[in-house]
Amino acid sequence: MAQQSILTPRATDFPKWYQDVVAKAGLAENGPVRGTMVIRPWAYAVWEHVQAALDRRIKEAGAENAYFPLFIPEEYLRREADHVEGFSPELAVVTHGGGKELEEPVVVRPTSETIINSYFSKWVQSYRDLPLLINQWANVVRWELRPRLFLRTTEFLWQEGHTCHATQDDARDYSVRILREVYEDTMVNVLGIPVRVGRKTARERFAGAINSWTCEGVMGDGKALQMGTSHELGQNFAKVFETLYLDDSGNQQHVWQTSWGVSTRLIGALIMTHGDDKGLRLPPAVAPTQVVVLLVRDEGGAGEKAAAIAAELKRRGVRVHLDTRVDTSFGRRAVDWELKGVPVRIEVGPRDLAEGKVTVVRRDTGDKQPGPVEGAAARAADLLAEVQASLLAEATALRDSRTADVARADEAYEAAQTGFARLPWDALGDDGETELAQKGVSVRCLQAADGGLPHGEAEPGTVAYLARAY
Amino acid sequence: MAQQSILTPRATDFPKWYQDVVAKAGLAENGPVRGTMVIRPWAYAVWEHVQAALDRRIKEAGAENAYFPLFIPEEYLRREADHVEGFSPELAVVTHGGGKELEEPVVVRPTSETIINSYFSKWVQSYRDLPLLINQWANVVRWELRPRLFLRTTEFLWQEGHTCHATQDDARDYSVRILREVYEDTMVNVLGIPVRVGRKTARERFAGAINSWTCEGVMGDGKALQMGTSHELGQNFAKVFETLYLDDSGNQQHVWQTSWGVSTRLIGALIMTHGDDKGLRLPPAVAPTQVVVLLVRDEGGAGEKAAAIAAELKRRGVRVHLDTRVDTSFGRRAVDWELKGVPVRIEVGPRDLAEGKVTVVRRDTGDKQPGPVEGAAARAADLLAEVQASLLAEATALRDSRTADVARADEAYEAAQTGFARLPWDALGDDGETELAQKGVSVRCLQAADGGLPHGEAEPGTVAYLARAY
Repeated sequence: MAQQSILTPRATDFPKWYQDVVAKAGLAENGPVRGTMVIRPWAYAVWEHVQAALDRRIKEAGAENAYFPLFIPEEYLRREADHVEGFSPELAVVTHGGGKELEEPVVVRPTSETIINSYFSKWVQSYRDLPLLINQWANVVRWELRPRLFLRTTEFLWQEGHTCHATQDDARDYSVRILREVYEDTMVNVLGIPVRVGRKTARERFAGAINSWTCEGVMGDGKALQMGTSHELGQNFAKVFETLYLDDSGNQQHVWQTSWGVSTRLIGALIMTHGDDKGLRLPPAVAPTQVVVLLVRDEGGAGEKAAAIAAELKRRGVRVHLDTRVDTSFGRRAVDWELKGVPVRIEVGPRDLAEGKVTVVRRDTGDKQPGPVEGAAARAADLLAEVQASLLAEATALRDSRTADVARADEAYEAAQTGFARLPWDALGDDGETELAQKGVSVRCLQAADGGLPHGEAEPGTVAYLARAY
Repeated sequence: MAQQSILTPRATDFPKWYQDVVAKAGLAENGPVRGTMVIRPWAYAVWEHVQAALDRRIKEAGAENAYFPLFIPEEYLRREADHVEGFSPELAVVTHGGGKELEEPVVVRPTSETIINSYFSKWVQSYRDLPLLINQWANVVRWELRPRLFLRTTEFLWQEGHTCHATQDDARDYSVRILREVYEDTMVNVLGIPVRVGRKTARERFAGAINSWTCEGVMGDGKALQMGTSHELGQNFAKVFETLYLDDSGNQQHVWQTSWGVSTRLIGALIMTHGDDKGLRLPPAVAPTQVVVLLVRDEGGAGEKAAAIAAELKRRGVRVHLDTRVDTSFGRRAVDWELKGVPVRIEVGPRDLAEGKVTVVRRDTGDKQPGPVEGAAARAADLLAEVQASLLAEATALRDSRTADVARADEAYEAAQTGFARLPWDALGDDGETELAQKGVSVRCLQAADGGLPHGEAEPGTVAYLARAY
């Protein structure tokens, strides 16, 4: 199985390269039921680090985790008109349970706004109960006809936040807080992905929302990936589920709500942002193994030295793996660790050691530095912050080089063939948007003139980012 | 809503008391689809601590987390005869997806042996790939006709481990390692529950296993709760899924397998082991809030002092909550924190403070100690280890007082009306077991004469523990 170096080059066929990396780095496989996915240990460990980073920020933003049922009565989804229209084509329906046909079919949750609101309407009584800030980590199901591992799967893992607020302003502020302090911060500072953050157009909005914010990544092929969204739901769900509170003047009011989610799609974003022709390149913050100590041959004290370096890295709090599989060729193992994207590798072999040296290799740049054994662990540990920053800088440079300023819709269409197009929203408008969307180019987000979040599409100076999207 | 102190006493009606605690401590509610459950934030936070304790031990035992699909082709389950017979009556079946009737119905996983083996058969090639040690955290569905929150629900959260080994001995050793180092250790030293650990009889074995180990808790009403099981699957699944490896002599062999799981049922165990007539009593190791600092009235510098004590506890690494809701009566808040089972409470009020004092209250014993403000945080922090040990000691004393040594099946039946009966297995036998099972008393586990794990039922001196069970 001499498969290791055989990745389709990115420049030749990006989608094929993506499939190759997913398969050969042992990240995921297709499930037996169409569109489902097996997440293998290496990718799942990445997901655990992503989850931990998000979960800490979600809790810092005051939300508490809970868990709501997988099964939702079909009738719940029908209550909010836009919502059911958006999700109906994607539903999985359970018709039999416990050996009998069910009286009422139930759907497997595609998202939990409806079932969660059926509880919020009981839990919220007075303004003292607000804000109510709930998050859940769960699997959801949306039937996919054209699945792609991590990017679009019938079942995926995600977190979905659902909140109730006394006022529209408070709901909006919270939706932005999640967008900025949880999503953007994790994506930029943990995943090393310089997302474009903005507002969705009416056309691209979540089914049932009055406003959707989004984080859009620029992938290695110039296409956009929607990486996370945070929605203002207004009072749409509150009205159909009668989620009411008694305000401090004694009047019944509908709550204002938000919902927000990110998913295992983030693994796809990591692959397509940082990957190169040798495989995955993981930012140290989410790498299951940050440094691999690779024993070349167990001679001349190399085994003991490799173990000692690994032990020192562990003491320094580095996630380290000691690879002593000397019955597999050194070259093959090095290539495997490159495929898996481990940020730093220390090669410990008898020839180097005879000169008092080991070699430290950066995965991101390929830079190889032979250097003294003494201090090698410290040098490797110090490199991690550098690799983290460098991957972000490289992705930012790519993003910027792939963004073209244009003035007209036809120019935007052209530019979107290789990256993002940025043009004034009033040079496009709803009609221009629809026309381009039919040709596969969509408005990924709107930003205010200063790069901030616009309150609406019509704000003067609003800028649209367009691209082809996953 | 003056509901707080109104729990049905345990002695009056234990099941009603359980329902009351679950509802009034805000732990869980029924979902809209029969048998499903909403896990509210307080109980979910307990679950997160339980999960973390288990996950750390699972990883120390060498297993890696992964994720397999929710949907399993119905045909997979039919391949292992005992397995499908065991699970068929409980399956939820999806017949429609993406707006169409599916060509082949899929089941929502009741457990994942079949789908995981369909991948193991691809991943395992040679003895070098063994052992293969995989765990997943997931939701599973088993249709329940008589659901009870946490104890028996149609959907529940759990972890399920699945492993492949080269030899039967290695598989057995690993199943025991998980039983002892992961399950028993967590239950005893984290949850404070002194489980009886042993072997299941053939009658009580997992559907598809050749041997099941179990951890059985003694609940407050003397009934047994099966809290976790670890199974030797032999080569049953390996044979039907053709999970083969090339041994070091070049021969194809079927792997030997294990599977093992614990679920959100552990929350039910915590409630029924440690709860009292005032509500839940949480072991500090899993308490979302370990110490609550309760501001009585914001006068005489009490607000500042309460905040300072909370800050000091936080610095000491204690999970602390500062309750300043002085517009709700002190008594009601105290009762609420008792309901929720927070291990230690510090009451900070102007009257005590005028004498330089605050009051430290233990939830487990009810002991109230007024003492100097100085050092109060340290005293409360030190109490946590004491409360943890004391809850385990109390549960152990209850377990032992509820275990009767008997010599005959009819005596076992009698003793099982209030607790566990222990009798020699050869005084019972398969027929005696069947007869008692029909009357609602089952063999919870078998132990060897020395209290260890018996290799089979027929080993001389084997002892059976019988009880009524949840």
